[in-house]
Amino acid sequence: MELELVNSKFLSLSKLVGREVKKSSSFLDTKLMFGLNGTHKFCSCRGVVLKASYDAASSISKENLVVDTFSCQINGTGLYLRDVRMLDASDDEYGGVVINPQTLPSNPNIFASVLRASLSHWKMKGKKGIWLKLPVEKCDLVPVAVKEGFQYHHAERGYIMMTYWLPDDPCMLPSNASHQVGVGGFVVNDKNEVLVVQEKHSAPALSGLWKIPTGFILESEEIFTGVVREVKEETGIDTEFEEVIAFRHAHNVAFEKSDLFFVCLLRPLSTRIMVDDLEIQAAKWMPLVKFVEQPLVQADSMFKKIIDICIARLGKRYCGLSVHQLVSTFDGKLSSLYFNTVEDSNSNCQAN
Amino acid sequence: MELELVNSKFLSLSKLVGREVKKSSSFLDTKLMFGLNGTHKFCSCRGVVLKASYDAASSISKENLVVDTFSCQINGTGLYLRDVRMLDASDDEYGGVVINPQTLPSNPNIFASVLRASLSHWKMKGKKGIWLKLPVEKCDLVPVAVKEGFQYHHAERGYIMMTYWLPDDPCMLPSNASHQVGVGGFVVNDKNEVLVVQEKHSAPALSGLWKIPTGFILESEEIFTGVVREVKEETGIDTEFEEVIAFRHAHNVAFEKSDLFFVCLLRPLSTRIMVDDLEIQAAKWMPLVKFVEQPLVQADSMFKKIIDICIARLGKRYCGLSVHQLVSTFDGKLSSLYFNTVEDSNSNCQAN
Repeated sequence: MELELVNSKFLSLSKLVGREVKKSSSFLDTKLMFGLNGTHKFCSCRGVVLKASYDAASSISKENLVVDTFSCQINGTGLYLRDVRMLDASDDEYGGVVINPQTLPSNPNIFASVLRASLSHWKMKGKKGIWLKLPVEKCDLVPVAVKEGFQYHHAERGYIMMTYWLPDDPCMLPSNASHQVGVGGFVVNDKNEVLVVQEKHSAPALSGLWKIPTGFILESEEIFTGVVREVKEETGIDTEFEEVIAFRHAHNVAFEKSDLFFVCLLRPLSTRIMVDDLEIQAAKWMPLVKFVEQPLVQADSMFKKIIDICIARLGKRYCGLSVHQLVSTFDGKLSSLYFNTVEDSNSNCQAN
Repeated sequence: MELELVNSKFLSLSKLVGREVKKSSSFLDTKLMFGLNGTHKFCSCRGVVLKASYDAASSISKENLVVDTFSCQINGTGLYLRDVRMLDASDDEYGGVVINPQTLPSNPNIFASVLRASLSHWKMKGKKGIWLKLPVEKCDLVPVAVKEGFQYHHAERGYIMMTYWLPDDPCMLPSNASHQVGVGGFVVNDKNEVLVVQEKHSAPALSGLWKIPTGFILESEEIFTGVVREVKEETGIDTEFEEVIAFRHAHNVAFEKSDLFFVCLLRPLSTRIMVDDLEIQAAKWMPLVKFVEQPLVQADSMFKKIIDICIARLGKRYCGLSVHQLVSTFDGKLSSLYFNTVEDSNSNCQAN
């Protein structure tokens, strides 16, 4: 059952990744859903709602190799092979093939010959993108796959995903994740004091700067929960998310990926500061006026603009984006939509 | 020179990635800058503004192995080794080590013994995170590194990045990119018609739905240029970016990563539609009323909400986020800040 669930997830993924899309998108067309408990059985990819392969996965062979009785004609010589060993794999919805990572041979030489035979077969059948997920335990197979023409696609701690684009025309496989997401919490109490920190590992240029708590959101974490967690971790202060005030988009940041940073307005729910000794040198409630007057803030157009906006928001002269969780019938999943509430009579913003 | 530039980029990256951060962030503290032409020489990491290693990189040994004359005491036996071969590497700013990918030995056995000696040395010196970037040409070394205890961190087409956390306490190295970013273009002409498409690979459930053009942004592409490009590619229509209207955050999408989708309002600059035959079945200007009346839109709370917002924005009863490019002195780079212009007398929004 456990194995079947893994298979189900992997095969569901394959519906998307195996597709010849150079671009895809978002709620209006591409969504893929993995049920956390194996009960969700569909995903939608660029509008294609798919029945997931949970049931199919249950019946996948657990043998190391699958004997496939295909026939192929080699170089037009008329020579026919029968009972050639093939890698256990599934077709995806987009003309591609997903190799089953559970049933890969361990021996690199066997893997090499079977992979070669499989690639010839798939090419002959007009297949396009081939997806090979190698668990870290099968790391000996990585050099073999490279030598057979596979490319690295992405990796996570437990595996590396490799791809092979069989057609002669340009590769249309989708890209890997491109962004990291950071959050910053602007927390102001009823004495008009801002919650600020000084970090332990501060540059000389930033020496003495008091800044708002910031951090990355975790895997699958919401922006509105991630920012509350970061503020709690760094300062011990409990807060409630109110709005995304602005966001910044920057490129070539860590690992040459891009960065989206969301500035959030939070309402404090507690007052007593407890500093995270690991990362934070000091934390305090600082009068807003003093926070703004810091020379390093005044000298920086980006910082200054953001703080100006936050202050306008405190004065109800600016409308940030509040969050609403909605289910779309197109992928059946709950997701978070951020938009402003200018027209909402309950809005904190009175700009209208 | 080419090699030096590569080194420069890698070593600059190392300043960030080698750091013991379980979380980092964004413009307020973590930024890293790579000059496209090698002229930018600094990066700032969690507030640390660093002089990049461009000059240092120029002087890096090009030999396969560096003879290091460190001495080490093994297991308290009093045995001292001298002239032990070590991997060519640089310290990073955060107690870590970045192995130079340019000077790795090719032979897996030599690599194994030198890696082992290097790890012992770094452990003795109290080093923390070890970064090993293996170019695809050195794929034979991947199994060796795994056997020595390295873990996969991330991979791109040309390389796999592996890490080793030496201390006994939990690994604090930063994570890989977590999100993909999609965009959708809401384009309305002066006849109150919306630019809509039908996709070639549409699910039966979405059969007949006319939707706005959508797609992923490219590597290092801005949201405001990516959405204009997507609309042009799919429909042939030239547009000008006006505002981000709302955004949606969803999880466990492609490759189990998260997805941020930005709905953008665009102003059309041309009228003649030319359909992208590869992905798009049909495109047209559709009366806004008919677009909204589509049963599939009416039945979906997410779609309906977004379209309601777009219509409010057209009626100047909603304030989206416009984009402003600003340089922050903390990383010296131009980045894009998105915020609304409620207070701006030139704003299109008259909600104020």
